[in-house]
Amino acid sequence: MQPKNTSQKLTDEIYMSKALELAALALGRTSPNPVVGCVIVKNDQIVGKGYHRKAGTPHAEIHALSEAKDQARGATAYVTLEPCSHFGRTPPCSDALIRAGVKRVVVALKDPNPLVAGGGIQRLHEAGIPVEVGVMSHEAAMLNEAFFKAITTKMPFVLYKTALTLDGKIATETGDSRWVSNESSRRYVHQLRNYYDVILVGSGTILRDNPALTCRLPGGRDPIRLIVDGELRIPENSQVLTSSGESPCIIATTKAAPIEKLKQLTKLENLEIWQYDTPRHVPVKEMLKDLFSRGWNSVLLEGGGTLAGTLIQEQCVDKLECFIAPKLVGGNGPSPLSGLHIPLMSEAIDLHDLQVDTTFGDIHVTGYLTSRQIINDENSKGGYSCLPEL
Amino acid sequence: MQPKNTSQKLTDEIYMSKALELAALALGRTSPNPVVGCVIVKNDQIVGKGYHRKAGTPHAEIHALSEAKDQARGATAYVTLEPCSHFGRTPPCSDALIRAGVKRVVVALKDPNPLVAGGGIQRLHEAGIPVEVGVMSHEAAMLNEAFFKAITTKMPFVLYKTALTLDGKIATETGDSRWVSNESSRRYVHQLRNYYDVILVGSGTILRDNPALTCRLPGGRDPIRLIVDGELRIPENSQVLTSSGESPCIIATTKAAPIEKLKQLTKLENLEIWQYDTPRHVPVKEMLKDLFSRGWNSVLLEGGGTLAGTLIQEQCVDKLECFIAPKLVGGNGPSPLSGLHIPLMSEAIDLHDLQVDTTFGDIHVTGYLTSRQIINDENSKGGYSCLPEL
Repeated sequence: MQPKNTSQKLTDEIYMSKALELAALALGRTSPNPVVGCVIVKNDQIVGKGYHRKAGTPHAEIHALSEAKDQARGATAYVTLEPCSHFGRTPPCSDALIRAGVKRVVVALKDPNPLVAGGGIQRLHEAGIPVEVGVMSHEAAMLNEAFFKAITTKMPFVLYKTALTLDGKIATETGDSRWVSNESSRRYVHQLRNYYDVILVGSGTILRDNPALTCRLPGGRDPIRLIVDGELRIPENSQVLTSSGESPCIIATTKAAPIEKLKQLTKLENLEIWQYDTPRHVPVKEMLKDLFSRGWNSVLLEGGGTLAGTLIQEQCVDKLECFIAPKLVGGNGPSPLSGLHIPLMSEAIDLHDLQVDTTFGDIHVTGYLTSRQIINDENSKGGYSCLPEL
Repeated sequence: MQPKNTSQKLTDEIYMSKALELAALALGRTSPNPVVGCVIVKNDQIVGKGYHRKAGTPHAEIHALSEAKDQARGATAYVTLEPCSHFGRTPPCSDALIRAGVKRVVVALKDPNPLVAGGGIQRLHEAGIPVEVGVMSHEAAMLNEAFFKAITTKMPFVLYKTALTLDGKIATETGDSRWVSNESSRRYVHQLRNYYDVILVGSGTILRDNPALTCRLPGGRDPIRLIVDGELRIPENSQVLTSSGESPCIIATTKAAPIEKLKQLTKLENLEIWQYDTPRHVPVKEMLKDLFSRGWNSVLLEGGGTLAGTLIQEQCVDKLECFIAPKLVGGNGPSPLSGLHIPLMSEAIDLHDLQVDTTFGDIHVTGYLTSRQIINDENSKGGYSCLPEL
């Protein structure tokens, strides 16, 4: 293939950025599908734009083509993910693009979904339409990192969020923890709740803090709230059980759950109880698989230390976001990961792809616990993604 | 005064940077004096340069004038600190500059030393030499932050250095702590040891790790090693007592020191014992005052948690440098500040002037615990410094 003209490359990136912005509007709304955005460009004008809003509804390309109407003929389509080639709940988008007469398609990333996996691109090629793959592939992969993990491993993507003081404490030695991180950081956490399908905590957190676990942003939506509670210790009047009419709550428990308590709780509306056939500890991997089976790709783990430690030890956590408040409290109060047990410093779990910023006033650290593989096949033109190669 | 010409301002900054670089060469060598650098510039050429190397030896200006010889006449002198006006162990530098016939003097900062305090500048003014004050004053103040704290408070500047994992641990739950921070961070700590007059640790650190506390950089010099050991528990064969012929070791102890042990230790060469008249705990403020009296301005506190907690609680720590290793170990192992006891999160000790970088691979956080006052009097032209106004 010919080396790309620099100005064409910049133009492609500008329109792909727009498509990515559109895709991001639906974050947290499309599972089990990815978020996808599309813009149709003719004579340097955007003539159609769209994004996928919800599983079962039209894909981004269909929205964009419908806005573009006749102007799609001879236009370029920018799509953040390879157009589909299969009949799912909606007909294949690659066919729709061909029928509309677009003359070129620019794609950020190939679709890792085995039902698509290059088929959409091939279909366009066969129709004589040139396809450019790999424009802003990194950004596109980041935007759908949860989807990519889920579709390739059948397990949801887990983000562990925590906050501690610069001297390593999540509470003072008297147990006071209001507040470790500052207001901006806490507002950002509500943004995460708005984007993630499921919020996950241990029963200790419910008993200690009685949180609502809702998203308190204007226009936000509450995630599914999942409580790991092996012995069913959660009080019936916990805020998490009573605070949201919009989003269901799930309790994962075991054979250790008292029968009477089970009976009482099953009467509550909007509550599911998942009882696993284990003596006391909820089998977390099985539980995560069950979340995936229900179509939920992304999990926001907010603690506490026992549950987070278990999930990290079982290699179920993909990413960490940590807020370090620039203050000191000292003492022997708790640190965030009491439930993780690494005996030697040389065996510590390393974080990859570290990013550090202080835009929230606190020190905000992001890193990955699982390895992310670079895809660099000839068709992707050096683009890469966080998913294992198919 | 007239607004400065922009190109003159840039020129001044270039030469002052050079003078600051020269000053920095003597960091850790000049206490109780500050580090000072000087360049003499004529017709856009540096004709003389110098820096103060050691207390009791000639000041920066004298070195620079002696290199410049006759070319000093009509030249501009750049000095990182106000030239002195008093007879100390050396004659006044302001007089030397006047005698040499310089036509202009540029000074980064006024000298906070009560014996100088504007007198040098006044003397130059009286001789008809224009003096520009405040060029790169922030950088100059940072370079001498220890000196400024010490001269204005009669207490040495204390930097607390620590390292912990991202989940707040200085060791695993089995007690393993080799290594928390990476090799680059540890090399940087040896640079700090090279710059600080005194390195300070508690006896627990000696008993647990048996460190040498020397500076293992090529060309580095060992700091004074001070061990706080209220009950004189330190073993006679500790590395800290035997590892450096160059730099003395001091043990600060109390009435609780066993007499036999005292006798044994007093036989050791290169060791001083400071016995305080207290029952068990060394009075740390008094000890720091004693360091200042000996002419030591800067103290590098390397732990452990009990001593660091006490010093922070007593408001004796000025600055913190913290290396956060991007890794997780979990468990209930120690965090760095076990000896600090803040009961409520809202009463946590805040850090000011936070800086965060990842150049060492670890997350390197620097901040200040004590407030730093901005000096903005008319003569300093908006320059500022970390010292309280005199």
